[in-house]
Amino acid sequence: MTKVSEYIDHDQHGVSVGIVEKKFFTFAEPPHEMLLESGAKLGPVTIAYETYGELDAGKSNVILVLHALTGDSHVAGYYSPDDPKPGWWDIMVGPGKAIDTDLYFVVCSNILGSCMGSTGPSSINPAVNRPYALDFPLVTLGDMVTAQKALLDHLGITRVLSVIGGSLGGMQVLEWTVRYPDMVASAIPLATTTRHSALAIAFNEVARQAIMADPNWNNGDYYAGPKPDLGLALARMIGHITYLSDESMRHKFGRRLQDRNDFSFDFDANFQVESYLHYQGTKFVDRFDANSLLYLTKAADYFDLEYHYGEGSAEALPKFSFRSLLPAFSETLSTSTTKTKMWEARDTYSWTATLCFRSPAERNFSLRFSGS
Amino acid sequence: MTKVSEYIDHDQHGVSVGIVEKKFFTFAEPPHEMLLESGAKLGPVTIAYETYGELDAGKSNVILVLHALTGDSHVAGYYSPDDPKPGWWDIMVGPGKAIDTDLYFVVCSNILGSCMGSTGPSSINPAVNRPYALDFPLVTLGDMVTAQKALLDHLGITRVLSVIGGSLGGMQVLEWTVRYPDMVASAIPLATTTRHSALAIAFNEVARQAIMADPNWNNGDYYAGPKPDLGLALARMIGHITYLSDESMRHKFGRRLQDRNDFSFDFDANFQVESYLHYQGTKFVDRFDANSLLYLTKAADYFDLEYHYGEGSAEALPKFSFRSLLPAFSETLSTSTTKTKMWEARDTYSWTATLCFRSPAERNFSLRFSGS
Repeated sequence: MTKVSEYIDHDQHGVSVGIVEKKFFTFAEPPHEMLLESGAKLGPVTIAYETYGELDAGKSNVILVLHALTGDSHVAGYYSPDDPKPGWWDIMVGPGKAIDTDLYFVVCSNILGSCMGSTGPSSINPAVNRPYALDFPLVTLGDMVTAQKALLDHLGITRVLSVIGGSLGGMQVLEWTVRYPDMVASAIPLATTTRHSALAIAFNEVARQAIMADPNWNNGDYYAGPKPDLGLALARMIGHITYLSDESMRHKFGRRLQDRNDFSFDFDANFQVESYLHYQGTKFVDRFDANSLLYLTKAADYFDLEYHYGEGSAEALPKFSFRSLLPAFSETLSTSTTKTKMWEARDTYSWTATLCFRSPAERNFSLRFSGS
Repeated sequence: MTKVSEYIDHDQHGVSVGIVEKKFFTFAEPPHEMLLESGAKLGPVTIAYETYGELDAGKSNVILVLHALTGDSHVAGYYSPDDPKPGWWDIMVGPGKAIDTDLYFVVCSNILGSCMGSTGPSSINPAVNRPYALDFPLVTLGDMVTAQKALLDHLGITRVLSVIGGSLGGMQVLEWTVRYPDMVASAIPLATTTRHSALAIAFNEVARQAIMADPNWNNGDYYAGPKPDLGLALARMIGHITYLSDESMRHKFGRRLQDRNDFSFDFDANFQVESYLHYQGTKFVDRFDANSLLYLTKAADYFDLEYHYGEGSAEALPKFSFRSLLPAFSETLSTSTTKTKMWEARDTYSWTATLCFRSPAERNFSLRFSGS
């Protein structure tokens, strides 16, 4: 177990993979552009990625982590000694942690269409030397996975012990299992679905409309001027409503007021839940690109594993020869809207990915993977 | 039973109260302004209202109907022979209908703060001879009911057989039963709550922020210029998400596409649910004032019967000596968020308002009320 003592102050769990580096892989240089599912072509394509742990000699200890809608490649560790916080899943990925970097080589890449280092609408379109904006082609979950496959090819990896991800990352997990089944030994799709319900599409569409109604959006062409921050913050507030359930909101906020004893009788945020949404919306605009949110929510809405691979039915989906583990939250609004369509693990598959709860209260557990 | 044959083409049910008239009652003329719950004063106050049926000699056959957030006083009938559609509850109120205007005198008034004839933020502030806009004081459910009470006083009505309303109208019903219990013989609060949950407040706050983020909103001062139509449409789309449940959206829309066979791979509305939300949003801006939506949603969020009358607990609410009927939808998102706090009918009260389902499939039933 590697401890990096100089960063231990930054790690509330006392253990970290330490300093990590964001890397970039570029492929599909013209005239060999990537053919997208829409029929459009895109190139060059850059994929930002990070790796943790050591790749073994047989390249047989790979775990592929796939991030959610607004995530990035930075799963664990710190970029610098004074980095104020670690990667988004540092609690899960590290030496001795649930996904143990002493045992496994973990790879995570930023999805195609995002704004965290991989090619997306905010990237420079080399044909015109300015950001793509809405000239960026619509990408699908399939396109994202195809780009991830190109990265693994580049790294010489032909098989992974597991693909793991939640929400939009879980959709990528499912897409991996049908697109490249021979490369996947096990799959852990978390809190996800084979396709969005009408309600999930409705939430996403209102979020998109919030962005597009902001005059600063300017039909997507805002990179040289003011950004559509108000619209993007609204979109994020809508998203955050779906990330909590009625019950969890009652527990977290109830009708409690924020820093006051009575109503102000104006339109200030009086309730804690209002302050929370304002905070989440405001914080988000500093780190995310509005056009990327449009593209990624659309990709999520288009995703339909049953339509593309199952002739419209989950029952008709191929019976894959890999092992899956499918935890899900029962209490969030977003998953309660999708769980009835969630792909169910077939009883015929034994579980290689064993979830060992040492202490459920601390969410302290480890996963052990095998390639057989 | 009165049939008005010349309008029968407009009435799909073949029966109507016929031509009706919107009337106005003005009170609280300065210096006798209405004292609001916030401590602010408002006057003069105009209340738009309509009546249907005949008031009996003892003024003992009155039913008070209370409308929801964006409703109005026009419950039933037509304003003119070429009026394209009847009032919002024409299916329920009319000769021989569930609320039978051959038997009862039905009163409905537009709520204080609205934009459908009663005084609200779009009304002219006589002190400055221009619309109040944000100078309009915040009104509460209690203020709305106080204004309705003033109207009944004006009409010489001292007791009503029943107060009936849904959603925000149901909140008014509940407020009536605690504010003026001696005037109420029975109460039918529909699909409502004694107080909004954090989730309901969250939806309302995002709707308000959508309006206020529209630059045309101009801090509420838009009556002489372009209106915040995009923001108001967004707010209505958010509202319409809450008016349907996950299940009802699956049934109504699923993942069906609108007028196309495949995705357009752009940001047009492809799914039926998207087209539906766009339609609802666009249609709404023609009939409703953005500032009124701000004021009325805030009033709904502030409403807390348990806090004001029950020392924070539904159990501590007064045990009123009237009869109540409390139907609720089990399947809509908005009611599923509130039903656990819904005021439950006490078993000790016998039911005067008897719901007789003659034919459930046609929703064909009648209510019979008595004042005893």
